[in-house]
Amino acid sequence: MKFRRSERIIDMTHYLLEHPHQLVSLTLFAERFGSAKSSISEDLAIIKETFEKRGIGTLQTVPGAAGGVKFYSRVNEESAKEFIADLCRQIENPDRLLPGGYLYMMDLLGHPRIMNQVGKLLASAYADQKIDAIMTVATKGIPIAHAIAAHLNVPVVVVRRDSKVTEGPTVSINYVSGSTKRIQAMVLSKRSLKEGSKVLLVDDFMKGGGTINGMISLLAEFNASVAGIAVLVEAEYPERLINDYISLVKLKDVNEKEAAISVVEGNYFSKNIDFLLEDSE
Amino acid sequence: MKFRRSERIIDMTHYLLEHPHQLVSLTLFAERFGSAKSSISEDLAIIKETFEKRGIGTLQTVPGAAGGVKFYSRVNEESAKEFIADLCRQIENPDRLLPGGYLYMMDLLGHPRIMNQVGKLLASAYADQKIDAIMTVATKGIPIAHAIAAHLNVPVVVVRRDSKVTEGPTVSINYVSGSTKRIQAMVLSKRSLKEGSKVLLVDDFMKGGGTINGMISLLAEFNASVAGIAVLVEAEYPERLINDYISLVKLKDVNEKEAAISVVEGNYFSKNIDFLLEDSE
Repeated sequence: MKFRRSERIIDMTHYLLEHPHQLVSLTLFAERFGSAKSSISEDLAIIKETFEKRGIGTLQTVPGAAGGVKFYSRVNEESAKEFIADLCRQIENPDRLLPGGYLYMMDLLGHPRIMNQVGKLLASAYADQKIDAIMTVATKGIPIAHAIAAHLNVPVVVVRRDSKVTEGPTVSINYVSGSTKRIQAMVLSKRSLKEGSKVLLVDDFMKGGGTINGMISLLAEFNASVAGIAVLVEAEYPERLINDYISLVKLKDVNEKEAAISVVEGNYFSKNIDFLLEDSE
Repeated sequence: MKFRRSERIIDMTHYLLEHPHQLVSLTLFAERFGSAKSSISEDLAIIKETFEKRGIGTLQTVPGAAGGVKFYSRVNEESAKEFIADLCRQIENPDRLLPGGYLYMMDLLGHPRIMNQVGKLLASAYADQKIDAIMTVATKGIPIAHAIAAHLNVPVVVVRRDSKVTEGPTVSINYVSGSTKRIQAMVLSKRSLKEGSKVLLVDDFMKGGGTINGMISLLAEFNASVAGIAVLVEAEYPERLINDYISLVKLKDVNEKEAAISVVEGNYFSKNIDFLLEDSE
């Protein structure tokens, strides 16, 4: 059966988008379409050019007999800026205000398109690093962790506040909450994380950094190490325990009395931004 | 700036995959590429044909001035069968066995590619129904709910065991666990679900159906109704409270003494399977 070029590139585009960070051999595509590898190479060159131009991602070519291509999700600066600005406006909506100055965020965390964009932005920032797993704390970090995982093609590991019978033997640590200074527990199933893993820590919200620090203590119990720290929202905090992280937005101020929430861009663009695709045109 | 056909169809493929169940006007694409609508229509015909042939999904054309196309994720029977058979084999691995006959499942629930496939299969089954939201119970149902939501483009609503300050006012109900017969509580943030919503209920595991029944009681408090019930694993159970559901796999038997787990295909294919794409060739 013969395939036209247009048909091949549609199927290859879908395949690559579904298999990020994974080496795909030219042979796989050549056999899939009964085409010569030279035709597949030409197709891939067109896909790579379009992905980069349209802010979709990039293809890395790995030469040699065991070679192939790897797709990495990337964003361009313009669309990332636009997305973050829109997120700030949404979080500033005074309807989010709850008693005690808390903000209702479940609508954003439950929105599949927003989560996919959050995942793509944060995954882009860690695309060049060796990451074996993404760790988060139940419950609100889970959609963000999975959204990043889908773009980096790594497993998600979920830390809980207490142990469950369905998780088998667990390792537990105590940590001090950064903002309330209370002692809390964190539990991780022993079999969920391999010894020596390099782990990206993810959370929805960071204030004092206590939860992130708790996860770091837990990593030590698995001889695992921190590959990065990514949060959706950071809040102003005088003496944070954590310095090296990436945030998409920053909560500057919540004024309950006047029902005013002030949100600005996080440190996403102030870090090394080599990971962004150049804006086209 | 002019775009070649190959470039257009790569970008359109990506755009449609990222915007399932959403009407995309031909004008959007025509302006994006500076092309005539007739060229865009031709491109879409090629994409539709390839999507259906390759088991990716389908495009529905909505005619008229306010028309456009909608992409629906679909799977073909062959690839769905293959995926479910592989899932059965993975769940039958005796290493999963925990004391009390429980099975460790966090590796599957944390695996982004597996979750994406699970989401695609379950979303395919409900693609033609009006669904306003997907509801699940924290924690293990969350990745499945989000995986389905990504393909159906609807929000995820998370029910908890207790209320949290970050969720605002909540509605709480009590329900009887199907297997342990204990009374348990379920809590949902009032603002997380609109009155009158049609809701797809999702869970990782169903035995007696108590958790699903709890969610149904909760829906009543929001004047909301059940649009469907989807679970990853169902277990054998004599008198289940729930009949109309879709499961991907069925746990037949767990023999702790002999460390043997028996898993078969769920009822996915015994239900109405009009939703599947026909196998090509």
